[in-house]
Amino acid sequence: MRVTALLAAALAASLAGRAAGLEPLRNLVVILGDDIGVGDFGAFGSPNTQTPAINRLAEMGAKLTQFHTQPLCSPSRASMLTARLPIRSGVYTNESFPLDEIFRVFMPVSVGCLPNSEVTIPKWLRNASHAYSALVGKYHCGSNVKGGCTPTQAGGFDYYFGLLNSHEEGFPGPFPESIVFPPMSLHENVRIVEQPTDLLTLTPRYTQRALQIIETVATGNATTPNPAGLGPLSPAPLRGQPFTLFVHYEESHVPLFAAPGYQNTSTRGAYGDMTAQMDGSVAIIMEALERHGLLNSTMVLLSSDNGAWIDPSSGLPGARGTAQDGGSNGPLRGGKGSTWQGGMVNPAIVVSPGRVPAGQVVSTPTTIMDVMPTFAEAAGLRLPGGVTLDGRSFWAHVNGTYLESPLSMNDVATQARQRLGLGPAELGQPQAPPPIPQVHEAIYFWRADKLYAIRQGDYKAHFFTRPGFGLEPATPHDPPLLFDLRWDYGESRPLNTTLEPYATVLANLEATAANHRATVTRGVSQYEDVSFDVVPCCGKPFNETEALMFLERGMPGLALWDACVCNPENAFRPGA
Amino acid sequence: MRVTALLAAALAASLAGRAAGLEPLRNLVVILGDDIGVGDFGAFGSPNTQTPAINRLAEMGAKLTQFHTQPLCSPSRASMLTARLPIRSGVYTNESFPLDEIFRVFMPVSVGCLPNSEVTIPKWLRNASHAYSALVGKYHCGSNVKGGCTPTQAGGFDYYFGLLNSHEEGFPGPFPESIVFPPMSLHENVRIVEQPTDLLTLTPRYTQRALQIIETVATGNATTPNPAGLGPLSPAPLRGQPFTLFVHYEESHVPLFAAPGYQNTSTRGAYGDMTAQMDGSVAIIMEALERHGLLNSTMVLLSSDNGAWIDPSSGLPGARGTAQDGGSNGPLRGGKGSTWQGGMVNPAIVVSPGRVPAGQVVSTPTTIMDVMPTFAEAAGLRLPGGVTLDGRSFWAHVNGTYLESPLSMNDVATQARQRLGLGPAELGQPQAPPPIPQVHEAIYFWRADKLYAIRQGDYKAHFFTRPGFGLEPATPHDPPLLFDLRWDYGESRPLNTTLEPYATVLANLEATAANHRATVTRGVSQYEDVSFDVVPCCGKPFNETEALMFLERGMPGLALWDACVCNPENAFRPGA
Repeated sequence: MRVTALLAAALAASLAGRAAGLEPLRNLVVILGDDIGVGDFGAFGSPNTQTPAINRLAEMGAKLTQFHTQPLCSPSRASMLTARLPIRSGVYTNESFPLDEIFRVFMPVSVGCLPNSEVTIPKWLRNASHAYSALVGKYHCGSNVKGGCTPTQAGGFDYYFGLLNSHEEGFPGPFPESIVFPPMSLHENVRIVEQPTDLLTLTPRYTQRALQIIETVATGNATTPNPAGLGPLSPAPLRGQPFTLFVHYEESHVPLFAAPGYQNTSTRGAYGDMTAQMDGSVAIIMEALERHGLLNSTMVLLSSDNGAWIDPSSGLPGARGTAQDGGSNGPLRGGKGSTWQGGMVNPAIVVSPGRVPAGQVVSTPTTIMDVMPTFAEAAGLRLPGGVTLDGRSFWAHVNGTYLESPLSMNDVATQARQRLGLGPAELGQPQAPPPIPQVHEAIYFWRADKLYAIRQGDYKAHFFTRPGFGLEPATPHDPPLLFDLRWDYGESRPLNTTLEPYATVLANLEATAANHRATVTRGVSQYEDVSFDVVPCCGKPFNETEALMFLERGMPGLALWDACVCNPENAFRPGA
Repeated sequence: MRVTALLAAALAASLAGRAAGLEPLRNLVVILGDDIGVGDFGAFGSPNTQTPAINRLAEMGAKLTQFHTQPLCSPSRASMLTARLPIRSGVYTNESFPLDEIFRVFMPVSVGCLPNSEVTIPKWLRNASHAYSALVGKYHCGSNVKGGCTPTQAGGFDYYFGLLNSHEEGFPGPFPESIVFPPMSLHENVRIVEQPTDLLTLTPRYTQRALQIIETVATGNATTPNPAGLGPLSPAPLRGQPFTLFVHYEESHVPLFAAPGYQNTSTRGAYGDMTAQMDGSVAIIMEALERHGLLNSTMVLLSSDNGAWIDPSSGLPGARGTAQDGGSNGPLRGGKGSTWQGGMVNPAIVVSPGRVPAGQVVSTPTTIMDVMPTFAEAAGLRLPGGVTLDGRSFWAHVNGTYLESPLSMNDVATQARQRLGLGPAELGQPQAPPPIPQVHEAIYFWRADKLYAIRQGDYKAHFFTRPGFGLEPATPHDPPLLFDLRWDYGESRPLNTTLEPYATVLANLEATAANHRATVTRGVSQYEDVSFDVVPCCGKPFNETEALMFLERGMPGLALWDACVCNPENAFRPGA
């Protein structure tokens, strides 16, 4: 009792002290990796990557060890921006759609996108706090400029620089999509600035643009040089105004690439080289935020969009990479694309000095949809009205209200003396700390148009399972597979649901899932309208007639490759 | 170049500054868990244990992510104490021995032990620096007092308090050994102080004794009360003299137990409760070392003896526990007992403030046999002569000589600017940091009397594989299974060794293994001489006649249970 009281008093004093000297929380910085799993950062248990900056970042705030995304890029990014399940916004495919295995993410031929009717974080913040919002890096929520689909259109961002689709699409082999798509286009706002994109300089250029935004907010001027091939940042934020910056690195999605200073340096091979390159970029951004005095008015969230692609050589016919090019989901089963834990649990870190006590480990389940509600609570902003949000604020779970453990060695020692019954006498009888409430009543694992699984507390039930990629159909489970994630975090031992307590647990999960299914309002699938007419093509419309003819003849190779090239000097030079 | 030079200069300055004010390194504190895998501590990637103290410990020094032990308790602990492979010291069983699957560790009936002829760390230090050496906790290198087998006899320790064997032996069901062994005996030096042992107070009592040692070195007097049922610490260390303290917790070996303050508190279930109890105990010890000013003359190493027992319900006939009672080996294949990574890779942390830069992650492969050589180099002591050591010093890999990465966010940022080619111009061309040398030419994975596998650099070859437990015989592999641990850390994708470069890699591994096999001098197996006559029994000889009769009749139950009880009030009260 006394220990708890002591800790609470110390914390209250510390919070009061902070409140006195701390600037208001105004800025949100989200750094997102791509296909990086829970086994890929040192701070989350990677045995052989080199991620010193991300490890430090985890020590600076809260490490979320049970952070859930969606199983693939497009739905995951859409769900973050809207705080809503992709089934609501339409960023899903119907399993009855003939090309459903291809169109599980947006492609260069996608006519649809994250609809303009959705309230994204930038749109919400524009109303709530007149913030400047920029996205640097991968969008993957629509690339149809004519249809108003891009980040500065339907996305609501003020500024955009990056790749609208996955960089494997339009990469010369071994990726099957490259047969029909022109080389990757690099976009600034609605304009193509490069095609093909020079991958070896892409990450430094993303980081340069991010630095320019930070510098402009801080001083009114960007001192970092413009990224190669680009003019000054436009539109730029105003000095001293709130800003929102999403930096969505391509790291470490296949095909792998790394700048020369990172090539052949990691004990984790080429995947490690690329991950280290992101780590270095994170350090540069964090150093700039701190140097310019912006960190204590900012919340930084770092995560990835879905689990690691554990074997990019498997799946659809036609190899997309080699097995060693994939990341690691640590102890989790399955990977990207699936609703096993390995597909939808990602590493995540939240940092906000003075607000989020440093050195926390938060194992309460959270989701990528929680970014908007959490920032809203932390910054005292009102959430968008008239819209169903699936995200919940986990602010109380990172700001010290529900500390899972004491944070200093001495505090742990003091509490342990009490819990072990080792005096002093005034500590009283051995006492366990109070339990911590859940953030979510339940977490829903959707894939395409089906609810595949549900988690409630420590239990997860699978109604369907299916490999992350490939043409093998979904396996229905009746009764559903039930796992106790407390000890079976790898989902390898289904429980016997004919016995108690599992029969009751399962019944409760099934009832919650049935209620969810019955009450979800589905958006119109945005994947199923496709046309070569909308493919991004540098300086001219894409030659749809030729593309269709090409498809009909089933020709291999890169027949359409040259059609959209506007800077032929940009050879592709992928890393090892 | 310049960055590297800057970092080197900063480090040199820092080391020089330290050297000026730092006391000589004199003390060694080893804290060992039991059956704790790489997936069981937050700092190593556990998603749901609560280990705040161990997480802090990892931030205070170097986290070793590729630290190898032996696959089971007895050989692992023997190899640490001697810096030698168990095949040399005799702590192995011949696979031709009829009870080889039982006698892979020492049992209460074992006549043999870690031989007196072996130079253990305490014996070595007694000659090298006249240190006082104590072991608190599990020994598992021999329990035959009459044969001179215990820690203060053959082990060379000055003081001992703990369980000589595994606490499952002599635990009333469901453990098959409990049928023939009397209840667990708790020993102080060569004396039995309790039988049965009260498990619920065992961890606090271990910690109390450890504190008394620290307090006595620091002040000449122990202020912590004596552990229940024990008198004052005797022999005690001298104030101000060098000391060596091994604290070998039972956590988190089945059967699981936890003091009331830890019961039902962890999101990882009973295993998490027990692990949190160890974590709290670590905090108490670290707090005491720091408070008494001993930490800066001490090297602290924390690890476990072998991989997690991923399913204690499997293996030998007769359940030893339930599946949920086992720990986690994170992404590693297999577990305790096996020569897969999951059996022999453990979490490890080295802390020595002022000498070991804080916040390092060291992924260079190391072993539990390196403790003696590493402490020798760090403390400037001469290693024992005339004996073949398998351990190597990894001191240069933790003292800053070979930093895997810069240690502060700003240093990472500065290096990343160079590696990404982002000015300033004086940083020069993008440059990768220099490679880091290996500690071991090769790491040998022995099980019983066979070399099962070998690791060299990033490659591991398996000559035999076998489940950790059970009667299924070893599977020989010709050609051996070859894995590239850089990307296949989970050993799931054997490489095609008919192709280059793998054919050459394998040939080199086979040659190294053949040379090792041919040159190892085997000790006499210490497991194969067994007698009921040596079973620890409180106040009287164990009734061997009755035990043999009992065995012959194949009777179930606990017929011999009462024979050795000297404190019947100690009921067994295992945790949930």
